[in-house]
Amino acid sequence: MLGAIEAGGTKFVCAVGDEMGKVIERIQIPTTVPEETMPKVIEFFKRYDLEAIGIGSFGPIDVNKESATYGNITSTPKAGWRDYPFVQALKDAFSVPIGFNTDVNAAALGEATLGAAKGLDSCLYITVGTGIGAGAIVQGKLLQGQTHPEMGHILVRRHPNDEFQGKCPYHHDCLEGLAAGPAIEERWGDKGFHLVERPEVWELEGYYIAQALMQYILILSPKKIILGGGVMKQEQVFTAIYNYLQELVNHYVELPELSTYIVSPGLGDDAGITGSLLLAHQALQEN
Amino acid sequence: MLGAIEAGGTKFVCAVGDEMGKVIERIQIPTTVPEETMPKVIEFFKRYDLEAIGIGSFGPIDVNKESATYGNITSTPKAGWRDYPFVQALKDAFSVPIGFNTDVNAAALGEATLGAAKGLDSCLYITVGTGIGAGAIVQGKLLQGQTHPEMGHILVRRHPNDEFQGKCPYHHDCLEGLAAGPAIEERWGDKGFHLVERPEVWELEGYYIAQALMQYILILSPKKIILGGGVMKQEQVFTAIYNYLQELVNHYVELPELSTYIVSPGLGDDAGITGSLLLAHQALQEN
Repeated sequence: MLGAIEAGGTKFVCAVGDEMGKVIERIQIPTTVPEETMPKVIEFFKRYDLEAIGIGSFGPIDVNKESATYGNITSTPKAGWRDYPFVQALKDAFSVPIGFNTDVNAAALGEATLGAAKGLDSCLYITVGTGIGAGAIVQGKLLQGQTHPEMGHILVRRHPNDEFQGKCPYHHDCLEGLAAGPAIEERWGDKGFHLVERPEVWELEGYYIAQALMQYILILSPKKIILGGGVMKQEQVFTAIYNYLQELVNHYVELPELSTYIVSPGLGDDAGITGSLLLAHQALQEN
Repeated sequence: MLGAIEAGGTKFVCAVGDEMGKVIERIQIPTTVPEETMPKVIEFFKRYDLEAIGIGSFGPIDVNKESATYGNITSTPKAGWRDYPFVQALKDAFSVPIGFNTDVNAAALGEATLGAAKGLDSCLYITVGTGIGAGAIVQGKLLQGQTHPEMGHILVRRHPNDEFQGKCPYHHDCLEGLAAGPAIEERWGDKGFHLVERPEVWELEGYYIAQALMQYILILSPKKIILGGGVMKQEQVFTAIYNYLQELVNHYVELPELSTYIVSPGLGDDAGITGSLLLAHQALQEN
């Protein structure tokens, strides 16, 4: 039996399942502070005889195995979680191998193994929700360099009619600052799901996401692009993205038919937890 | 003995050398049309008993081994070279394994093996000259997805005082359109080496390149960034890049000391030809 945690900023999804990514049982635990959240996680897993645990975590996190702070959440503004030794806390409770990566890298792994990019050695998974983040599989492996990618904060060109100042505390009007859920809410004065009938909202959203995809494509050349997260449940954003992206790329690189190249997650909302199970399996095999 | 070709838009550098990247002899051949250039390439290599040949070529090229047009130069505007079957032409003349990649990927391989990124499993090599291109080593391998990267054409934000329309025939004011050599010449009315005493030229250059590095860092997180090509011989551009990049990243990700993180090629102008020798060696080993 494998354990998996999809650790998000508002909730932890904990699951047990198998190495094929099949979830057998799952619970949700609110993300409050580690002293409250983690005992519930451990209590859940103690009910099973686990061989390994995989974690797909909100970030930034330290994924460099040679680092002294490997396994920690690092500079998050989330109260109580800054510098939290996530992997160590689980190691103290369970003497099993532990896989640790970002939530979006876990989702990318899930999608490349069992979802929309199944059978491909390359894909990009992007979530557009409370924040914007992305994970990637490159030549069959989760992308990692000096650290994990932070693709949600890339620069985009502001739309000439968009006067919203941007919500990113670091960069103001980077992609996340202009296009994540909180930016939509503040710019238009209402939550996204109340704005469904206002096409200009989703047109602008597509304008920014298409720019990001242009950069990702030219830099990584992924074989499939998967767009998940709450904002992407607005199907009209996909249409806007296809139109703007064609215009931006302007046939400079040959793109596959966009409606099959840029798609929703094949695993739906389960990409992250499924990928975390696969991270557990990888950790077991590497052990 | 290994053969290597660094195929550029104005000249081909052909060399023979060893698997340690050591060049034993080299010649330069002007890049005119294939019917003229290639016989000279073949004549040079016929003088040696080669075990393999490595090619680092201008692009775009087809590097997908499963493609029917693998080994071809593809959509270049360069007269005579569009759809040219580069690898096949050499296979017809020499029955040895042939490695084929972009010039910038070859340079990245050279730098990661023997140059400024020696010993690292990750680096980014960028050339800023007649065009802008980049190659990358990710987790020890040359970055490749659906095709090779085309990082020179990413979008940047125009400087508010820069009214130059941009020179890219596809995207007008993408990075290459605003910051490659021909853009500098047209914007300022003179060639770069006559503009050495005009700091505003290099300040603006740094402004655009820093934006590109911001994107590359957030997407790929390279362990070392190497900037080569004619424009980067202006040392003052590095200083401008360091300043703008610090401002843009704004401590969102932790960067190493910039003067050791973003550097000139350790192999100088030989990064490409050295990397091409290493591509030959890789082809021999994979055979």
